[in-house]
Amino acid sequence: MSESSAVELVIVGSIGLDDVETPKEKRVELLGGSVSYACVAASLFSRTGMVGVVGDDFPERYRSLYTDRGIDTAGLECVAGKTFRWGGVYDADFINRSTLFTDLNVFESFSPKLPDAYQSAPYLMLGNISPELQLSVLDQCQNVSFVVADTMDLWINIALEPLKKVISRVDMLMLNDSEAELLTGHRGVRKAAEAILAMGPRYVVVKRGEHGAMLFSEEGIFIVPAYPVKEVEDPTGAGDSFAGGFLGALVELGTVNESTLRQSLLVGSVVASFNVESFSLDRLVELSREDVSARLQTLTRMMTV
Amino acid sequence: MSESSAVELVIVGSIGLDDVETPKEKRVELLGGSVSYACVAASLFSRTGMVGVVGDDFPERYRSLYTDRGIDTAGLECVAGKTFRWGGVYDADFINRSTLFTDLNVFESFSPKLPDAYQSAPYLMLGNISPELQLSVLDQCQNVSFVVADTMDLWINIALEPLKKVISRVDMLMLNDSEAELLTGHRGVRKAAEAILAMGPRYVVVKRGEHGAMLFSEEGIFIVPAYPVKEVEDPTGAGDSFAGGFLGALVELGTVNESTLRQSLLVGSVVASFNVESFSLDRLVELSREDVSARLQTLTRMMTV
Repeated sequence: MSESSAVELVIVGSIGLDDVETPKEKRVELLGGSVSYACVAASLFSRTGMVGVVGDDFPERYRSLYTDRGIDTAGLECVAGKTFRWGGVYDADFINRSTLFTDLNVFESFSPKLPDAYQSAPYLMLGNISPELQLSVLDQCQNVSFVVADTMDLWINIALEPLKKVISRVDMLMLNDSEAELLTGHRGVRKAAEAILAMGPRYVVVKRGEHGAMLFSEEGIFIVPAYPVKEVEDPTGAGDSFAGGFLGALVELGTVNESTLRQSLLVGSVVASFNVESFSLDRLVELSREDVSARLQTLTRMMTV
Repeated sequence: MSESSAVELVIVGSIGLDDVETPKEKRVELLGGSVSYACVAASLFSRTGMVGVVGDDFPERYRSLYTDRGIDTAGLECVAGKTFRWGGVYDADFINRSTLFTDLNVFESFSPKLPDAYQSAPYLMLGNISPELQLSVLDQCQNVSFVVADTMDLWINIALEPLKKVISRVDMLMLNDSEAELLTGHRGVRKAAEAILAMGPRYVVVKRGEHGAMLFSEEGIFIVPAYPVKEVEDPTGAGDSFAGGFLGALVELGTVNESTLRQSLLVGSVVASFNVESFSLDRLVELSREDVSARLQTLTRMMTV
């Protein structure tokens, strides 16, 4: 896709500078945030526009990283102040983590505004931001045909009513298994997912970390396996790169049905598996479509009797 | 298969009376033990013989449960004293559990002896008993062509050297993901499984609880998904019914290769999914081949793009 072509997929969410510590290594001021991971992943396949906010301390090299990937940054707002910052440390298992600090900074007063050119984009991803902000973005999209929302336990705990509104207005909700159980009060992903489907969306994707994900709809269940990587370096952004890779591939396929969703979810799983093999977006930015195709073929063999 | 036909699959392991408490219900003196689950699961598909020990308090109805399923009980030893007893309580997640008591009783001096008729059986499963006992069984099998061993963290911690001998002499090792990491010191199932393959067995199956399992061999990796049940009643015996269902199906297919292993592992996954839907062997004993086929078809659809 050329940089001048129309944006097909809009992704809204957070942009942050992350301090990440794993049992092996510590890195600071890494590019992070749901939009960064999701847009870079999606940009492999589709013309993607980002909506987010950074402060005047946001490094120029990070902005170039977006534009070098052909991402449309018309929706990237830069305001006076500091960029959102997050610090976390992973346990020995490289899965569970503790947050060391969360400095919202300019993100605290973020009010996402869609550039005119984005308002006719057919695909929208509402990354993990407050349900109120997700609703305000939904109100700005007149002609969107497929909307995916991500969420997290924080919003289930402190903003359940607006979150329910979001859920009732989107085509697909994505969330972790524990969050699905928290949201519905049901034990087990299957019952939880069925309860979420009853809240409005046609599709629910339950993410299961290193075990992959599951798609639930009226048409049945699809088990999305995770590609078993040899070595995890940094799991940060796995869920967002999964979502971005999935949506990018779906947009490229051009139709939403059970078959294209299943194909695209496998692409998302493969993209996420590359993402966790390095810190920040290091692996994603150098990823080629050939890398994805080759690993997708391997993953498909791992699922085939 | 008729009851008089030759035993094709021998399963050695524990037989116990279990007290099981879940967040919903408590049941006492249930039939349990690795041999009980594995044999009943395998008996759906193959002529299976059991090797285990019970005390003179072992209820007649439990013995009949074996024979009603066509299981050969020539290797079921009954000695003076009490049957092995175990009690455990499951956490709210129905996954993690605490052991309340373990009374070895007659199991303490168990020395498995294979009846003559079992010594020419081509398939052998060494259920989770001490590696020393597993080795003594291996020494009694002259003509076995495919041996699977299960193990657990206890033996990795207290009997590593004999366990390594077992591993070097079997065709397939089955263990949990955390046990694979403990055994090898490697983080991540893939590296751990590769290290186990280097210890001798041609195949390693890493069990991942409610997420299924993975088969590792020189020929690659197969991801075995778990069938997402609507409601877990009691996860006890899931791993053993998985192993039994797998081996029973494999024996019926009659050849061991990558394709038959993959098919059989899916059968094992389906059988285990039925097992967790009720306490003890309640669901397994009433399970039909048609039930398994129907769910296998559903699971296959859940894995297909």
